[in-house]
Amino acid sequence: MPRIASIETGFYRIPLPEALTDSMHGEMRAFELNTVRIRDADGAEGTGYTYTVGRNGAAVDAVLSREFPEIITGEDPDGIERLWHKAWWALHYGGRGGPTILALSAVDMALWDLKARRARLPLWNLLGGYDPKVPAYAGGIDLDLPLDALLKQTDGNLAKGFRAIKMKVGRKRLAEDVARVAAMRAHLGEGFPLMADANMKWTVDEAIRAARALAPHDLTWIEEPTIPDDPAGHARILREGGLPVAAGENLRTLWDFKQYIATDAVSYPEPDVTNCGGVTPFMKIAHLAEAFNLPVTSHGAHDVTVHLLAACPNRSYLEAHGFGLERYIAEPLRIEEGFAIAPNRPGHGIAFDWESLARLKA
Amino acid sequence: MPRIASIETGFYRIPLPEALTDSMHGEMRAFELNTVRIRDADGAEGTGYTYTVGRNGAAVDAVLSREFPEIITGEDPDGIERLWHKAWWALHYGGRGGPTILALSAVDMALWDLKARRARLPLWNLLGGYDPKVPAYAGGIDLDLPLDALLKQTDGNLAKGFRAIKMKVGRKRLAEDVARVAAMRAHLGEGFPLMADANMKWTVDEAIRAARALAPHDLTWIEEPTIPDDPAGHARILREGGLPVAAGENLRTLWDFKQYIATDAVSYPEPDVTNCGGVTPFMKIAHLAEAFNLPVTSHGAHDVTVHLLAACPNRSYLEAHGFGLERYIAEPLRIEEGFAIAPNRPGHGIAFDWESLARLKA
Ligand SMILES: [Mg+2]
Ligand SMILES: [Mg+2]
Repeated sequence: MPRIASIETGFYRIPLPEALTDSMHGEMRAFELNTVRIRDADGAEGTGYTYTVGRNGAAVDAVLSREFPEIITGEDPDGIERLWHKAWWALHYGGRGGPTILALSAVDMALWDLKARRARLPLWNLLGGYDPKVPAYAGGIDLDLPLDALLKQTDGNLAKGFRAIKMKVGRKRLAEDVARVAAMRAHLGEGFPLMADANMKWTVDEAIRAARALAPHDLTWIEEPTIPDDPAGHARILREGGLPVAAGENLRTLWDFKQYIATDAVSYPEPDVTNCGGVTPFMKIAHLAEAFNLPVTSHGAHDVTVHLLAACPNRSYLEAHGFGLERYIAEPLRIEEGFAIAPNRPGHGIAFDWESLARLKA
Repeated sequence: MPRIASIETGFYRIPLPEALTDSMHGEMRAFELNTVRIRDADGAEGTGYTYTVGRNGAAVDAVLSREFPEIITGEDPDGIERLWHKAWWALHYGGRGGPTILALSAVDMALWDLKARRARLPLWNLLGGYDPKVPAYAGGIDLDLPLDALLKQTDGNLAKGFRAIKMKVGRKRLAEDVARVAAMRAHLGEGFPLMADANMKWTVDEAIRAARALAPHDLTWIEEPTIPDDPAGHARILREGGLPVAAGENLRTLWDFKQYIATDAVSYPEPDVTNCGGVTPFMKIAHLAEAFNLPVTSHGAHDVTVHLLAACPNRSYLEAHGFGLERYIAEPLRIEEGFAIAPNRPGHGIAFDWESLARLKA
């Protein structure tokens, strides 16, 4: 096989179309995008990326540009498991979480893209091929939107083809959250899939109280009710709150997910391919969930993740939420009648607009 | 109080006096040193540092130089808990572990040094003051040393005043480990405190087998028998192996330690002040151990850590091991008859030789 000849990295600061807020990240005005292009000796290329909500991108860039060239150049790009473990152990001290795992996620994604493109297969097909139509929901980052603006945003999402919606909770007073969820339920009608995301805001007992107060409004799940560092707390919330619990955007490894899944601490594991270590661990997490009779959902990077869930029989909803990255992608993800459609282009099929991105160099 | 006026960072590549090997990090020829100097508006200064075994230092530097100035400049340096939490949440996405927590550890250390220096107190006194004499052991990174060289190194450590010694295990065949430990036991005599460190080499069942084979040689503990991602595996090794277990140099947060301590997965929690988040979480981990009736030991950075263990009634051994940093410190740690002595200079009392370090800029 042709060896890895080069790795080219990019680091961009992408302004958001409008400022976003959630309960713990505060106001977000821009996100950081880190890209990786891996080329083999034949000139074939795979692309990967990761992102942050505004900090640590320089550190991700440092790992990608200072460590990875030495770790993977000259290696066989088809041995992804081998390279993943080589990188994991090369970067282990001072690594594992944080910027290091984000960087590894981008590299792993690029390697899978390269493999699929060389094989002339769309990634979802290469990974096993279950169903290219993946149920999707619109994930709003809307904690501070006044209620009328929230309902207007919701109408916009319905018009875009979404048939499931997630909103933020975690406002100062629980009564406000309950009123907003009730208004959304009334607006959307009985049975319409509605989720709520607390972004780690609550203590365990606050979360149980909130879940019980929100349960009458029939939520599909409550997401990140407390900090990701407390699997036992999640298990209590799930057991005592009376609502399914989604969590995972702040878990960083297969083992983090194992800790949650094996202790009944999560109903909807929610890995993010750009921060759980890449496609390789994402698929293992999905399969671990399947072994425990759990569905798998996702966080972020919907344009790539649609392929991964399209290869999972236990896939539930794909999260579609936008940092506005679609402005820099040739053919953004299509949503039709509630489904995202995994494209049939080879690889993940994302073609970045490198020229426009070049103007946003961080 | 005078506010934080500036933060100055340094990033150095320090060649090792001789190459070191352990079972999973392979051969180490240099380590990376990241330093932080925080000055307040009065010109008072606190110094912190962290290090890696050869990679990810550039990412640590990126977090320190690109993120921290904005997070802490203009803040009250005495509100360390407040600043720690501000930084934790500012850096949370793409943060928590990896280079981010190493950077935070260095900043937190500098803030404690600044506080103690302003108060004209040695850090161990400021932190509560238990006993400045801390039992210490020499931690050898000696997996590949031939047996005669290992025994010679041991004689050198005895001559330096050590009365406890740790050696590496995890060679290709368990029989080799057993023979080397037996030889060390014979050399040191009955009752001499001897530990063995496997650096995550084994599966859980291999570790249980190894612990049982090594137990007749009366080890104080077996260290990092398997990967840090498996607390349940550690609990089994501890329960079934018949030896106390030390672990912690690869745990990165108070919550990681809680997971181990609250599930009987560790006998000697072993935080590293340069990678667990700094002095603030180190002390909480030590106190958590005390609440569970466990001793606390340490990893790395003995010159600072001696202060922390000197403030803990449940302190066991301080690890003293040398990347040769003492070549760049004015008054290195003293070892006397098996004890390290926490110095009575204000702060942690480490004065780096900035001129010599400047020649090693990475
Ligand atoms: Mg979320
Ligand atoms: Mg060790």
